[in-house]
Amino acid sequence: MNQLELMKGLSQENTTKIVYLVLDGLGGLAQDVGGRTELETAITPNLDALARTGMVGLMHPIGPGITPGSGPGHLGLFGYDPLQYMIGRGVLEAVGIGERLTDEDVAARGNFCTVDEAGIITDRRAGRISTAECSRMVDLVKDIGLPGIEIIVKPVRDYRFALILRGKNLSAALNETDPQQIGLKPLAVAALDQSPEAVKTAQLVNLWVEQVRERILHQKPANMVTLRGWAKEPGLPTFLEVFKLKAMALAVYPMYKGLAGLVGMRVIEGLNNLDDQLQALDGHWEDFDFFFVHHKYTDSKGEDGDFDGKVSEIEKVDKIIPKILELKPNILVVTGDHSTPSVLRSHSWHPVPTLLWAQKFIRFNPDVSGFGETQCLKGALGQFNATSLMPLVSAHALRLAKYGA
Amino acid sequence: MNQLELMKGLSQENTTKIVYLVLDGLGGLAQDVGGRTELETAITPNLDALARTGMVGLMHPIGPGITPGSGPGHLGLFGYDPLQYMIGRGVLEAVGIGERLTDEDVAARGNFCTVDEAGIITDRRAGRISTAECSRMVDLVKDIGLPGIEIIVKPVRDYRFALILRGKNLSAALNETDPQQIGLKPLAVAALDQSPEAVKTAQLVNLWVEQVRERILHQKPANMVTLRGWAKEPGLPTFLEVFKLKAMALAVYPMYKGLAGLVGMRVIEGLNNLDDQLQALDGHWEDFDFFFVHHKYTDSKGEDGDFDGKVSEIEKVDKIIPKILELKPNILVVTGDHSTPSVLRSHSWHPVPTLLWAQKFIRFNPDVSGFGETQCLKGALGQFNATSLMPLVSAHALRLAKYGA
Repeated sequence: MNQLELMKGLSQENTTKIVYLVLDGLGGLAQDVGGRTELETAITPNLDALARTGMVGLMHPIGPGITPGSGPGHLGLFGYDPLQYMIGRGVLEAVGIGERLTDEDVAARGNFCTVDEAGIITDRRAGRISTAECSRMVDLVKDIGLPGIEIIVKPVRDYRFALILRGKNLSAALNETDPQQIGLKPLAVAALDQSPEAVKTAQLVNLWVEQVRERILHQKPANMVTLRGWAKEPGLPTFLEVFKLKAMALAVYPMYKGLAGLVGMRVIEGLNNLDDQLQALDGHWEDFDFFFVHHKYTDSKGEDGDFDGKVSEIEKVDKIIPKILELKPNILVVTGDHSTPSVLRSHSWHPVPTLLWAQKFIRFNPDVSGFGETQCLKGALGQFNATSLMPLVSAHALRLAKYGA
Repeated sequence: MNQLELMKGLSQENTTKIVYLVLDGLGGLAQDVGGRTELETAITPNLDALARTGMVGLMHPIGPGITPGSGPGHLGLFGYDPLQYMIGRGVLEAVGIGERLTDEDVAARGNFCTVDEAGIITDRRAGRISTAECSRMVDLVKDIGLPGIEIIVKPVRDYRFALILRGKNLSAALNETDPQQIGLKPLAVAALDQSPEAVKTAQLVNLWVEQVRERILHQKPANMVTLRGWAKEPGLPTFLEVFKLKAMALAVYPMYKGLAGLVGMRVIEGLNNLDDQLQALDGHWEDFDFFFVHHKYTDSKGEDGDFDGKVSEIEKVDKIIPKILELKPNILVVTGDHSTPSVLRSHSWHPVPTLLWAQKFIRFNPDVSGFGETQCLKGALGQFNATSLMPLVSAHALRLAKYGA
């Protein structure tokens, strides 16, 4: 029995409220041997108090040593094993720019590239054109029509765009057209299985690429496209089905709203900052059981290599803790979807400092005086995998029945 | 390869002796922030000494957040993955009242219920009749015969009874007859698959229910039965096959004797208290390798919400430790099948403080000064799943060969 089936069998309704505060890329590293991480440097009296009266530990998003992308990172936090449930690249790209997919859509990641007169790729990223130039290119091709289906093309960032095919009986069993090196032509799209759906979808996409090629033949530097990561909406069991939780997502960035949408959370639009998020939390408090509050900028500063900037973002979040506690949640979790140490300027594999505070029924960690990576080594949660977090949270919210008699 | 197959391949005979002392529901919670749990409150000089010279840690019976029933809790302790090996409700009910099942028996949980003149259920539990009344009802129906099979009916507790069908070619692939709500008639029994065994068993059970109905039609308040949890003996590989251990169970309560019997332990009957258990341990010391000693009352007091009572039960067990050590076991384990914090008055998901003391070859935990939930955070065993305990124990007993060359 996999964990979601187990949770589906054990979960039960209750009136308890859960706040899941995710600081993207929270985990960090010290700049020097024996130094302090970003979280340990930040002045966080509120988080420290929660760590002393709650439980802390270190969470592995996928497993020791594995660095997650945002998709798997959040799936794990939501209790879905990221090694079992995959979100295709095409879907992640679409979701990341705020597109909502139906379960019939097929999505792909597109690159604008440069080909020579013979059609051979000379630059797989068209000189990394700007997002503005990408938008201009998308405008040239977005009204290309195909028989019987709707085509949605949207710029993503730099040379990348999202392609969505919307219609009946489409398949994502298609090969990627990027040959992964220069000096070769883009590949034609072909069906990866013998189903009529795949054969038909391949024909349609080849028609589309042909027309795109005609339209942008004389543009510079981008004059061709490649397509990768064909995928359909993954059809994940919803949060309500699995955990019997009415869940709401309070996020600013499209990617995280999209990920929350994939597990069936109700997504609130139009939030631009922590104040908006707090106000929405307060406004919807009675209507939902579970609130996913996402803060992006801890990760952004980490990716910029901005140690002090990340410290400052953590301190901003610390200041909103009292307002969350005023709502009297039964459970407050503070964690991240992965680590983004500013010394690495990227996502990393380091386990994420995690805090589970509950009104009742917790094991204390009396040797812990504050919230930080080193303190978490002494925490009552120990080191654990992300997929254990939702079971722990549901248990403390008294929302899980006993397994077996 | 699953773990039991691994153990079966690696286990080997030796003369080492193992005592597994299980305090049911051992793990607890503090009553207030920063307070002490039941185990931390108890005065346990002997357990504390073992913790200092052995290893401690925190054990998850199933996994983080999952609260086990007694069946899964013990299966995990015995090294059988509780998510892989399931004990059906009917079998657990029979085993819990001391019935030994053959591998052909089919067992069910029965409820006495109340129906109106039209046969519609008005109370699924017949006003929760007493165990004495349940016994009187069972006496009215226990001699009902069926062609070719033996029928065993035994009272369990309150309105619950156990039904065992004993004979050749019976199947447990039957639906439950309790409609799970009042205002409906009990369902007829039907085969869940098309096998002749299931069809025949369904016919037999319907015959039995008909006769029961005739016999108790005019009784009050119970005048009908429902049947649930159809199951056969799970056919677990035995302790001797898996671990090459001649194992003996020294338990007072039928449920735990029954669970030990399911994994092939030799069960000693007629033990009523710790003194009896100690005497039996001493008396059988030469004849067995592994001794499962079960103490129930730590769980009972926890379920009663009796913090001080649970403390006192732990102290009673502490006092017998020197007598166990006089027998010179190579390994002494002290743990529980789950936590039962008295503040929760029920089984819980909290990891169980666990002590593995061995004469030799252990990693020490020098920061540990006694046996308690908080101390266990600093223990050499860390946090681990119950299914790891038997491999650890077998290893320290020098009863496992190397895996691979």
